[in-house]
Amino acid sequence: MNADEFRKAAHAAVEEIIHYNETLPTVPVTAQIPPGYLSPHLPSTAPQHPQPWSTIQPDIATHIIPGLTHWQHPGFMSWFPATTSYPSLLGEMYSAAFTAPAFNWLCSPACTELETVVMDWVCRMLALPDVFLSGGEGGGVIQGSASEAIVTCMVAARERMVVKECKGLEGEEREKKVAEVKGRLVALGGDQVHSATPKGAMIAGTRYHAITTRREDGFRLTGKGLREALKEIEGKGLLPYYVTTTMGSTGICAVDVFEEIAEVKKEWPDVWIHVDAAYAGAALVCEEYQHHAKFFGEFDSFDMNMHKWLLVNFDASCLFVRKRQDLISAMSITPSYLLNPSHISGLVTDYRDWQIPLGRRFRALKIWFVLRSYGVSGLQKHIRHTVGLGELFAGLVRERSDLFRIVAGPAFALTVIQVLPKKGEKGNDGDEAWVQEVNRVTKEAYEAVNRGGEIFLTSGVVGGQLAIRVVSANANAEEKWVKKAFEILVKEAEKVVGTS
Amino acid sequence: MNADEFRKAAHAAVEEIIHYNETLPTVPVTAQIPPGYLSPHLPSTAPQHPQPWSTIQPDIATHIIPGLTHWQHPGFMSWFPATTSYPSLLGEMYSAAFTAPAFNWLCSPACTELETVVMDWVCRMLALPDVFLSGGEGGGVIQGSASEAIVTCMVAARERMVVKECKGLEGEEREKKVAEVKGRLVALGGDQVHSATPKGAMIAGTRYHAITTRREDGFRLTGKGLREALKEIEGKGLLPYYVTTTMGSTGICAVDVFEEIAEVKKEWPDVWIHVDAAYAGAALVCEEYQHHAKFFGEFDSFDMNMHKWLLVNFDASCLFVRKRQDLISAMSITPSYLLNPSHISGLVTDYRDWQIPLGRRFRALKIWFVLRSYGVSGLQKHIRHTVGLGELFAGLVRERSDLFRIVAGPAFALTVIQVLPKKGEKGNDGDEAWVQEVNRVTKEAYEAVNRGGEIFLTSGVVGGQLAIRVVSANANAEEKWVKKAFEILVKEAEKVVGTS
Repeated sequence: MNADEFRKAAHAAVEEIIHYNETLPTVPVTAQIPPGYLSPHLPSTAPQHPQPWSTIQPDIATHIIPGLTHWQHPGFMSWFPATTSYPSLLGEMYSAAFTAPAFNWLCSPACTELETVVMDWVCRMLALPDVFLSGGEGGGVIQGSASEAIVTCMVAARERMVVKECKGLEGEEREKKVAEVKGRLVALGGDQVHSATPKGAMIAGTRYHAITTRREDGFRLTGKGLREALKEIEGKGLLPYYVTTTMGSTGICAVDVFEEIAEVKKEWPDVWIHVDAAYAGAALVCEEYQHHAKFFGEFDSFDMNMHKWLLVNFDASCLFVRKRQDLISAMSITPSYLLNPSHISGLVTDYRDWQIPLGRRFRALKIWFVLRSYGVSGLQKHIRHTVGLGELFAGLVRERSDLFRIVAGPAFALTVIQVLPKKGEKGNDGDEAWVQEVNRVTKEAYEAVNRGGEIFLTSGVVGGQLAIRVVSANANAEEKWVKKAFEILVKEAEKVVGTS
Repeated sequence: MNADEFRKAAHAAVEEIIHYNETLPTVPVTAQIPPGYLSPHLPSTAPQHPQPWSTIQPDIATHIIPGLTHWQHPGFMSWFPATTSYPSLLGEMYSAAFTAPAFNWLCSPACTELETVVMDWVCRMLALPDVFLSGGEGGGVIQGSASEAIVTCMVAARERMVVKECKGLEGEEREKKVAEVKGRLVALGGDQVHSATPKGAMIAGTRYHAITTRREDGFRLTGKGLREALKEIEGKGLLPYYVTTTMGSTGICAVDVFEEIAEVKKEWPDVWIHVDAAYAGAALVCEEYQHHAKFFGEFDSFDMNMHKWLLVNFDASCLFVRKRQDLISAMSITPSYLLNPSHISGLVTDYRDWQIPLGRRFRALKIWFVLRSYGVSGLQKHIRHTVGLGELFAGLVRERSDLFRIVAGPAFALTVIQVLPKKGEKGNDGDEAWVQEVNRVTKEAYEAVNRGGEIFLTSGVVGGQLAIRVVSANANAEEKWVKKAFEILVKEAEKVVGTS
């Protein structure tokens, strides 16, 4: 494809992308295809000879778009949003054009240096403590996902603890002690943490302990809960080394009690405390949420995904650490072919030592473009608009307390609801039969809503009961779609429960 | 940025990218800026208010492009190439528009299903054994980098070995045995493996052993070398669980002796053998290289990066495994909010269980576009063209055996050379003083070449001696640039050595 062909193809792609976005509200939000739909339509081998773009492009509309789940659809209210925006797309274009594995500074200085600048911007925008700025001992690094950030911190935490426990030992004596220590290491998280934390412990190769949170605490991890767990683990002769705390849990957007956890951190300074704010951390762009960040400076790391709620396309996970040396100590290996004068001088940052993979994309560009195109005020507007939609939805639910109850929220635009078994009946969560009936009607209504294809929701389990999560927070979220979602929920719930 | 603004901005970006590519040969290949060049030119915080594209775009030319190392420059002959192409860029555009974290099938069925299709295409195109096709027990998955693929396989190998060794045990008894086994696990690789393998062992939390390769074996890992290392490790009461073998080592593009290693694998069937073909694996698109793949079916996994030599922009690392269950067993955690009917039915692939992070980008699009735009024949042409340039370069070097010697290659377009101390003098590698002089003149010439900025090379250490790596294999590689590189090398080498 030469430059002229590219110009023509790119213009056609731009038109198709614009058309895709503008017609989204008119198509079902989920793919209406069965598993295995695609392969029968495509050849089993790559073509031997070149094909022109005019042959390739039509297959996108024919075969790909029908198989997409439309995360930018105004009826998409599932999981958490994964937003994108036009400035972000422009960032991907330049990133692909300037492609480089960018594993060290020399590989592409602009890639490293712009990342340092925009991560400092993000740090200040979210009112995170200064310890996370690049000027001191800490700094930010763009990771692919919040799950990758968790594994990265967990490995760094594991190595930090091992080094501490094995101080002064050498050779095989040290190796034996290392094995003994690793066998006793335990990572922890509240039982509402994302599955990335137990998976991270599997990858880091350590034990994992889920701390039971309580309904009366709003399923938040408390200082008391954490302290008791740490003591219990130590009582068994085991060694806690890492804790995931959460700002905005996946199920219900619960926020752990950071003030209390910061006190516990003082008692266990060697245990790494990570704040997983993958989704809800975005809200810190608004002053009214910034009180949540007050104690983050006591912790070792904080991560939020701009690709969830802040209009940067996947992937753009912003990880901040208090001491970058903790990452570098666990992750740096510099062989001869990666040594260069800038590296040796210590003047530059080599972000490969802050992450698991060696290579990295130029992701700072899209963050830069989005921050400038929207401005902080534009991002605040987006957050407040969608938080407002969550409140609108919750208000509608409250008006039908005969049919629904709110299990959690609205918090950070998420409302978690259940369908009530019989019109007007007030149940008792101690009554197992009633709870089972709540689960049944909630599940049936939920499945009927998703079968309809107009809106797309996910379910979750809260305190052992099934619940429906509703979150409308992508860039196309709209009041009329939230109202429509509520109408659909009412219609399907009434069908299941019976309107008597 | 609305649709009209995006159309205008995207067209401007397309023009800038075309201009960038077309003017590349006229600018220095490396950035002519000092460390820390960028931040003084940018504000310290994100702007409060939105900025139009007309304000943002000029900063790319002013502040970003001057800080790039130009991997597509025809004078770029460093490391290994990191290619891109226009069809690949189009793939990134659609991927950003269709953004989704795509952690399971339902997240975006097309993303999963196209990945299965194109990975089967790649498998067949490279003439890999059928065990790596999706139809059986194996399959391919797109990872971010060869280093990520290595960690992924290493963790899967570790867990497979732990499960085997701890069979029948439960509870705390099992935990103790797990710790004991993990303390004895050893990952291995030849001493020419990429640093990603020792780093992988650090992340997986196991010991690592580098097997010494020999100059007389061409620094290839042999069956004998591997067998002796495995026995030595077992003799110490330790437990080998994983080996990285290499097709195309970073330093000199050596190819391990796979036929012999396949024999060793029969003796140690539980030890995971991974083939890291990150760069050179691309050559398997040409029949004349496909004999290398003959024994890969005996091994557990194979990985090659389309983002190195096959015109897909970073990231597109193609990992194939013989038994996908090995990955899934080590990496699957399915909480309630990720369960859905398609998942439960077992009808679909959830690639999140084949990798470390949860989320994933729609990278299959760019691979699909590139394979179709170039066709297999177009990729073969690119490989053969650049392999030919390597031979051309080596031929030029041979004509000046008074000034240079070839340490390795040409292999897969890479030639590794040294500058000889005195015109015409034949040295002796057993003579330490002579070797030091080789290192000195090679280093001085190498540094002078890179200071010039016309071409960009990397150095490496081969058998304890410094050498210069020359590889011209991006899409803009050209005969005249290879000749120019040789002329520059001659000029600088003569300056250092003296023409007497």
